Amino acid sequence: MTRRRKVYGWGYQGESLTAEEEGAALANFHRLFGVDRFEERPIPALEAIRLPAPRIGPPSSLGTICSTGAYDRALHSFGKSYPDTVRGLEADYAATPDVVAYPRSESEVAAVIDWAGSIPASITPFGGGSSVVGGVAPALWGDGCKGAVTLDLSRMDQVLEIDPVSRAACIAGGIFGPALEEQLRPHGLTLRHFPQSFEHSTLGGWIATRSGGHYATLHTHIDDFVESLSVVTPRGVVKTRRLPASGAGPSPDRLFIGSEGTLGVITEAWMRLTPLPRFRAGASLWFPDFFAAAAAVRALVQAGLSPANCRILDPGEARNTGAGDGQAALMVLGFEGWDQPLAELLARALALAADYGGRQEQPEVRPSAGEKWRTAFIRMPYARERMVPRAIISDTFETAVTWEGFKALHAAVTRATLDAIREATGRPGQITCRITHVYPDGPAPYFSFHALGRHGVLIEQWRAIKSAASEALLAQGGTITHHHAVGRDHRPWYDRQRPDLFAAALGAAKAALDPGGLFNPGVLIDP
Amino acid sequence: MTRRRKVYGWGYQGESLTAEEEGAALANFHRLFGVDRFEERPIPALEAIRLPAPRIGPPSSLGTICSTGAYDRALHSFGKSYPDTVRGLEADYAATPDVVAYPRSESEVAAVIDWAGSIPASITPFGGGSSVVGGVAPALWGDGCKGAVTLDLSRMDQVLEIDPVSRAACIAGGIFGPALEEQLRPHGLTLRHFPQSFEHSTLGGWIATRSGGHYATLHTHIDDFVESLSVVTPRGVVKTRRLPASGAGPSPDRLFIGSEGTLGVITEAWMRLTPLPRFRAGASLWFPDFFAAAAAVRALVQAGLSPANCRILDPGEARNTGAGDGQAALMVLGFEGWDQPLAELLARALALAADYGGRQEQPEVRPSAGEKWRTAFIRMPYARERMVPRAIISDTFETAVTWEGFKALHAAVTRATLDAIREATGRPGQITCRITHVYPDGPAPYFSFHALGRHGVLIEQWRAIKSAASEALLAQGGTITHHHAVGRDHRPWYDRQRPDLFAAALGAAKAALDPGGLFNPGVLIDP
Repeated sequence: MTRRRKVYGWGYQGESLTAEEEGAALANFHRLFGVDRFEERPIPALEAIRLPAPRIGPPSSLGTICSTGAYDRALHSFGKSYPDTVRGLEADYAATPDVVAYPRSESEVAAVIDWAGSIPASITPFGGGSSVVGGVAPALWGDGCKGAVTLDLSRMDQVLEIDPVSRAACIAGGIFGPALEEQLRPHGLTLRHFPQSFEHSTLGGWIATRSGGHYATLHTHIDDFVESLSVVTPRGVVKTRRLPASGAGPSPDRLFIGSEGTLGVITEAWMRLTPLPRFRAGASLWFPDFFAAAAAVRALVQAGLSPANCRILDPGEARNTGAGDGQAALMVLGFEGWDQPLAELLARALALAADYGGRQEQPEVRPSAGEKWRTAFIRMPYARERMVPRAIISDTFETAVTWEGFKALHAAVTRATLDAIREATGRPGQITCRITHVYPDGPAPYFSFHALGRHGVLIEQWRAIKSAASEALLAQGGTITHHHAVGRDHRPWYDRQRPDLFAAALGAAKAALDPGGLFNPGVLIDP
Repeated sequence: MTRRRKVYGWGYQGESLTAEEEGAALANFHRLFGVDRFEERPIPALEAIRLPAPRIGPPSSLGTICSTGAYDRALHSFGKSYPDTVRGLEADYAATPDVVAYPRSESEVAAVIDWAGSIPASITPFGGGSSVVGGVAPALWGDGCKGAVTLDLSRMDQVLEIDPVSRAACIAGGIFGPALEEQLRPHGLTLRHFPQSFEHSTLGGWIATRSGGHYATLHTHIDDFVESLSVVTPRGVVKTRRLPASGAGPSPDRLFIGSEGTLGVITEAWMRLTPLPRFRAGASLWFPDFFAAAAAVRALVQAGLSPANCRILDPGEARNTGAGDGQAALMVLGFEGWDQPLAELLARALALAADYGGRQEQPEVRPSAGEKWRTAFIRMPYARERMVPRAIISDTFETAVTWEGFKALHAAVTRATLDAIREATGRPGQITCRITHVYPDGPAPYFSFHALGRHGVLIEQWRAIKSAASEALLAQGGTITHHHAVGRDHRPWYDRQRPDLFAAALGAAKAALDPGGLFNPGVLIDP
């Protein structure tokens, strides 16, 4: 692969919003904030970035798989969160790793860990680097820690073995989404896990962060697709048994799923696959308001229908993504199947939705509202790098809550976020909501907010807004994250959400596997 | 409740197999073993049982909720495994608890734990006592341990709160299956979890042991129905947050689901419920052989059909339960639904099954083969107490394995078990197989074996057979248990199946929650 990923911004070098896309986004923000122009700061050129001198260097035995080059170190300095992007704009590379290692095998992973432990240096597992929660920035921890090594898994990028009878494959953790699907396609199989970051994130990263993918119902997270894992820890390799299910004690896999690189690094996984769906049926539906749409989604999922997609967008979200005019809420509904045509299932879902005022968009409209939203959704990550230089604070956060608690949570979070925007920036902003995944007992609401900040204090302003929103989420019974992970950014709320004694148990488990506290210190739990 | 549970055998005092049922079972065994009569030993009367003198007694503050009476101590001496029943026959009450506590609240649970810790005494959580793996027998551990306290949760037996919007309920851990369903029924809701032990097991026990229930596909274990948990540990109470889903670190619930009373005691859980199904459709199907039926089940589940029931029985199993003549394999197929009639789904499943030689039994046959099997299945636990006195060794074990590995596992387990029966007892026996739960990547095979043993050495003979079967399971890639749990009986194989470093992590977590090693020592993990 000759394309290189950007150090500042999303995707590959040379990729960005089109002028038209950027214009549309800016027009929205001009209107929203009531300003004619934005004060735009220049993006620092890669060559102009000054990195701190490396504190440690790799031993000669690891020389061929380690880099101390400026591009590698800069690329691994942080993820793609809002504050990360501000740091990029401000050329703040304080958290740069000293060494980036690119192991090609479990034994090379183990060798890097052994070396890092001997220094000692912290170890940050790195897949695609798409973390939006401060999960991949290197950190030193404690007095003894002398440096930071980032373990980039991207050379472990193959589908290693396929079991077509059981429909599963053993896949290396460093494989990116597109390569994974490409290598499975000749076998007629798919993992069918498509997070927004799909192109720029890896299987190991998905598992480590409990990524949310394609399915809006039933199996929403990557968790259920994991058949077994290989994890390299400082104490050795953990290989769990390939099993369709087990009742033998607490699930070993579930300890590592969501461990965010704190217990070791996920090098391989046997994953459950499906053939490509043979049948698809879908519709875009408009509802008088968001809560009517939410009631319809609840009815759908509680009736036992399990659409692959039943995302709903509030009117503001629909307008911001070009799918609507801001007057109605949108449901993007889709069924996928392997065995039977889905027309009847769709008809039943439409009838249920109609009970809540949902009316189907004319099927011949092209692109449909759903398609418009989908295009905007995929392009969304490219916007941040263009808006931060204009001091625009745009970010998203997500949660899950019971149906009983949903409306109160929505109200409290909306109010807290808007108040915080006004207080932090001195002017009104916007918050919109969609529901991305749904369960019989509750939805996963996904919020986007927009504020006009001020250069020099963007991170502080962002943090004030983020904190207010997070406080409200927590107070209303939500989780601090449904599928974005905890990282360092969510720690204060995660620490309160998680039972103290579970933290004690998790900390003890970490100490058993990583006694030196090398792995991702400060993420999820203190070493 | 005035009915008392039996100390020896299954169910309530006064309940047993009918003479007809017993006759049918014996006729089978006469034919199988080629003997005219069995040497029958008498069952010791409760009054004749001599229990060891209590080593400790409860403090006066706990007097009202504690018992040192003979019935209570005898009842809590073991579970319902094969060796437990032999011990009952032999009046071997060496493992009797000194004190049985019946707390009514979390604070009383905590008080009992504090008292036990102060002695120290081991603590054995006890729900219905239906463990078939040695999970509820009290044990002393280490030199300092001075006694054994059993914590019987049966007074914490209420549905505490219902959230009808989110379709969930907070339910006390000590509630038995029938009371749980009875208390939910007026609200039109059901947990719909029906393990074979339903009548004599509790919600807390189901969660602690990862019980397998009603659904043959999708959500087979209790695990997925747990929304949140309360667990009382020696360090305090762990209360997880009610969430439909979360991506915030490794799941706290999953650490306690399957912890088998080693980390603390599950006192409450918010559980996901459904309304009673409105539609049912099912059929009994006959297949030329078991592997044709297995191929059909695989096709069904991989096609994305999700029958509530698709159990298959090999010809021997079908005959032993009175459902068949031993010439054909049986599939008991059932769909349940809430929103739509299921005739088309059933028709599609029948068509798929026909591809593998499955032919439907005439629907007007009553009772159907499936109904006959179901009756036998529910009555099965009552047989053991009548067969053990005749030195008949009958037991079951279950596993899960990939479809790729299923046939080889079936062959190896069958051979190893039959060989071990012949070697241990000097005469041939029988092994049969059914599949109880199915997954896209593999089935959960459930084996039953029958041998004619000799009084005085029944446990040794049983252990030789069980060990041979377990070795074969493990060697062929299976799990030592799909839903019967680990207990003490499965420890040798569980220890090899589970990654060593996971054991280290689990042990560290246990030490963090139960530093005195009070809870269920020797089950799942050593303290």
